[in-house]
Amino acid sequence: MGITLGPNQYGKAEVRLVAVHRDGPVHSLSDLTVSTALRGRLERTHLTGDNSDVVATDTQKNTVYAFAKEGGVGEIEDFALRLGRHFTGEFSHITGARILIEQHGWDRIPVDGKGHDHAFSSTGGERRTAAVTFDGGRAWVVSGLTGLVVLKSTGSEFHGFPRDRYTTLAETTDRILATAVTARWRHREAGGNWRESFGEVRRILLETFATKHSLSLQQTLYAMGEAVLAQRDELAEIRLSLPNKHHFLVDLEPFGLTNDNEVFYAADRPYGLIEGTVLRDDEDHASAAAAWS
Amino acid sequence: MGITLGPNQYGKAEVRLVAVHRDGPVHSLSDLTVSTALRGRLERTHLTGDNSDVVATDTQKNTVYAFAKEGGVGEIEDFALRLGRHFTGEFSHITGARILIEQHGWDRIPVDGKGHDHAFSSTGGERRTAAVTFDGGRAWVVSGLTGLVVLKSTGSEFHGFPRDRYTTLAETTDRILATAVTARWRHREAGGNWRESFGEVRRILLETFATKHSLSLQQTLYAMGEAVLAQRDELAEIRLSLPNKHHFLVDLEPFGLTNDNEVFYAADRPYGLIEGTVLRDDEDHASAAAAWS
Amino acid sequence: MGITLGPNQYGKAEVRLVAVHRDGPVHSLSDLTVSTALRGRLERTHLTGDNSDVVATDTQKNTVYAFAKEGGVGEIEDFALRLGRHFTGEFSHITGARILIEQHGWDRIPVDGKGHDHAFSSTGGERRTAAVTFDGGRAWVVSGLTGLVVLKSTGSEFHGFPRDRYTTLAETTDRILATAVTARWRHREAGGNWRESFGEVRRILLETFATKHSLSLQQTLYAMGEAVLAQRDELAEIRLSLPNKHHFLVDLEPFGLTNDNEVFYAADRPYGLIEGTVLRDDEDHASAAAAWS
Amino acid sequence: MGITLGPNQYGKAEVRLVAVHRDGPVHSLSDLTVSTALRGRLERTHLTGDNSDVVATDTQKNTVYAFAKEGGVGEIEDFALRLGRHFTGEFSHITGARILIEQHGWDRIPVDGKGHDHAFSSTGGERRTAAVTFDGGRAWVVSGLTGLVVLKSTGSEFHGFPRDRYTTLAETTDRILATAVTARWRHREAGGNWRESFGEVRRILLETFATKHSLSLQQTLYAMGEAVLAQRDELAEIRLSLPNKHHFLVDLEPFGLTNDNEVFYAADRPYGLIEGTVLRDDEDHASAAAAWS
Repeated sequence: MGITLGPNQYGKAEVRLVAVHRDGPVHSLSDLTVSTALRGRLERTHLTGDNSDVVATDTQKNTVYAFAKEGGVGEIEDFALRLGRHFTGEFSHITGARILIEQHGWDRIPVDGKGHDHAFSSTGGERRTAAVTFDGGRAWVVSGLTGLVVLKSTGSEFHGFPRDRYTTLAETTDRILATAVTARWRHREAGGNWRESFGEVRRILLETFATKHSLSLQQTLYAMGEAVLAQRDELAEIRLSLPNKHHFLVDLEPFGLTNDNEVFYAADRPYGLIEGTVLRDDEDHASAAAAWS
Repeated sequence: MGITLGPNQYGKAEVRLVAVHRDGPVHSLSDLTVSTALRGRLERTHLTGDNSDVVATDTQKNTVYAFAKEGGVGEIEDFALRLGRHFTGEFSHITGARILIEQHGWDRIPVDGKGHDHAFSSTGGERRTAAVTFDGGRAWVVSGLTGLVVLKSTGSEFHGFPRDRYTTLAETTDRILATAVTARWRHREAGGNWRESFGEVRRILLETFATKHSLSLQQTLYAMGEAVLAQRDELAEIRLSLPNKHHFLVDLEPFGLTNDNEVFYAADRPYGLIEGTVLRDDEDHASAAAAWS
Repeated sequence: MGITLGPNQYGKAEVRLVAVHRDGPVHSLSDLTVSTALRGRLERTHLTGDNSDVVATDTQKNTVYAFAKEGGVGEIEDFALRLGRHFTGEFSHITGARILIEQHGWDRIPVDGKGHDHAFSSTGGERRTAAVTFDGGRAWVVSGLTGLVVLKSTGSEFHGFPRDRYTTLAETTDRILATAVTARWRHREAGGNWRESFGEVRRILLETFATKHSLSLQQTLYAMGEAVLAQRDELAEIRLSLPNKHHFLVDLEPFGLTNDNEVFYAADRPYGLIEGTVLRDDEDHASAAAAWS
Repeated sequence: MGITLGPNQYGKAEVRLVAVHRDGPVHSLSDLTVSTALRGRLERTHLTGDNSDVVATDTQKNTVYAFAKEGGVGEIEDFALRLGRHFTGEFSHITGARILIEQHGWDRIPVDGKGHDHAFSSTGGERRTAAVTFDGGRAWVVSGLTGLVVLKSTGSEFHGFPRDRYTTLAETTDRILATAVTARWRHREAGGNWRESFGEVRRILLETFATKHSLSLQQTLYAMGEAVLAQRDELAEIRLSLPNKHHFLVDLEPFGLTNDNEVFYAADRPYGLIEGTVLRDDEDHASAAAAWS
């Protein structure tokens, strides 16, 4: 009758894993939220409820915990690669996988000027991320970060935009620019020094946001992406999603006061949302589409 | 040097609009969260900060409010079509748009057995959604709903799945099945009786969830999608995302009690996540990819 | 040296319990979030880490689940009373307790015009609540609800307020009034027809909000509380917390449009917050302070 | 008829204020969420809707913004004192006030090894807090912090608790102890070096959590509070609320693996909740009750 199953996947979402590395008295932590999704020839369960091809999501969760013990966690890109390789290698009907990991940061609590051996405080809302996709026998690695909230109190302008019947926004040569950076960057290869690469990309993103004089958040976005690609050969592409967290100047005139860009109202909604990709143009991006979803 | 701008869009996200229709003493409400995103030839602002092609996100917000007055809100699919047509028609560098709308429901407060003229109570967390994409001169309409939380206290089994080294899950012939339905369905045409179509799809989804005996959540997902396509000719495709909101039987044996599927622990995380598409197979789905992102 | 332990309590928070009542083929649900807190002579654990008086919070959780089986759940006030009576009666050092319960609502999914036997949909964000406090040999019962979001599109004014140097708000004789009701009402006795009482209080709150012409949200608050006490003899006191969910008229004049109270911006923050108590004045409220914290 | 107005207050909640201090090229930020609540002789608006005593919540919001300009923000305790003094001094029917402030932290973005002049990144979820209450002509200052998430990977035991019919928890001599600290401490006087006091209390809380070997979270709580009072003479009392963020050891035995306190499941709900007060016993705490609500 012409109705059929299309693209599908299933898995266990948001497995909360905290691994303690106890090498002598000095401990370290890996605090991850892991989501696994499997793909393949899954018609049977959908059409008839025959589950002989369905690696239970509970089994996927168990595998995450067991792998944390068996091989350790290490860098999240490696951990995701190991998990995806296992699921696609072990089960004949599972031909693809997508593993998403968020890493939550912890600092050592300082005591008498040095970090404590086994006591930690959370670094807050920012998370390091990895998305690894197994597709057609190939693995794609996308590293990233999310929740990196930044703000510039000057060095940002916005003017020269078209004015139509519905335009009321005033032009400005000095505004607050604030955003919560979500960035994801695709590696050319499924291997590398993940930790060093992440640290450098994060540094470049922050420094570019800070130092690039901004005429639009789009310009800032592109500058951030371009700087990353220019300095990191291992990357093919970077995608940025930058909400424009508006800070509106409060009108103090009714109170007989001037407001020289000093007092702002931080708005929740609506917010601008600027999304863009920066590419290395000698790469085949079409063939890498699988990396992203 | 080989670095270039790739796909991008920008807009105003989560514009909160409440429109009151005051036709005499009996009022009605349209409570929407509207997000607009524009696409086109936007290299100038990204590369140089020249904003002459950037319809300000503030202008986009103003347009949403003005259109609510000028033509009324009506069905959210129509409202999204009007907004997208405006943005792509009015500005030469804006060649595409994506308008996302969530509608929040309100019931009349009952007083003396009938609904009050102008006092309402929220229907809660479920929202009706519309996603309209303008791409290459064509408009795609995807209707949907999200946050529809449903539960079956019986009529759900799960067994016959493969058991590997990491499998501990017991098979069951009677479990709670609970999920929060997110469903999005693509219309063949950018026109139709949106309200009637939405009401019927929602009814079919609910009835199928309730009445289909479930051997897996995947089977339930497919049955829900198939029933919708079988009964609604105006639709080409439906996508469902169904978190498996686990309810685990509490082990009461240590307390000398039996638990005959009566007492459950409702877990937050992790959760299963089942995602799938049901397609009409005589449609050209590849060419409709733009409808979805 | 003059440092000592003051008031304290401990317990298990947010135990998620779903109980299925399987009386033949027609099931019904009790979906609760239960928090227990115990008080008493707890100096030993605080000062020395000797836990011989500490009923483990894990034991408290187990007790919640076991009691759901042993006596059933029933009305949440009764369930809380049973739990509190158990904890204060069973352990000599536990002399007080506070049990908080939120109940999540479910409707039957309609199929062919009647509610399904065992398939349900969530009623959304509103929850019925109970707070039962055991103190000095007495039990206090406070029933309530939270998350009841209501809106009037007319029938609300606000004017006549003082104008000082910082006042810019315009007076209005027609505005939207919207709030999310949190109400808690104290029963005179620790017994009664909880279900009927709850249903009636909820009905009175809704009807009064709908029908009382409002000159301030404070006036609406008092009218709601007064109506409840006037009609429900079993209650001694009611406390209401009403956020004023502002809906600001959008200025459409720049677009050449008039806005006759039709198009509003629903703001997130800041919001007004109106909190008040309505009392029966022949009751001894001072002695009932323990009911509230 | 014996129904009357009881305790009440009203105000503007969650005013989002970002103040930029532009002293030459080096900027600094004050990022606050301010809530004001006024109390007094407010019967008229409640009973009749006569608003002549109601300082509009919009006016309260304006005052927050104007004061940020007029006197600067400074320490949040001082800012709250100024606001409360204004409201209770300016309006004859307003006799009390409660001002709550949360401060969001920002670090300078490091560029070439030093902090940037005007670019910042958020410090994450922890906030410094102040609660200032004006009551009966007196001002009470309670400083605090919330959202300080900490974890010890060892140095925590829990055993010796009573075992009843519902107890299944195993005793342990080595567990993860994790919590999100909310602490509030009352100053003896409404003046002092707020910044230094806050920094020291925070340091003491962290160091005590890290170094105190824990036999129960209650013991840790008391030790934290006692250390603060022992070292900070300016304080009369401290209240701590410590959710026990459970990290459960994953059972890896079914997979043939041992788990030597290495792999944990971080649970969301339920959680233990330990709340307690530590007092200086030569203070009159009863008379200070107004400081807390």
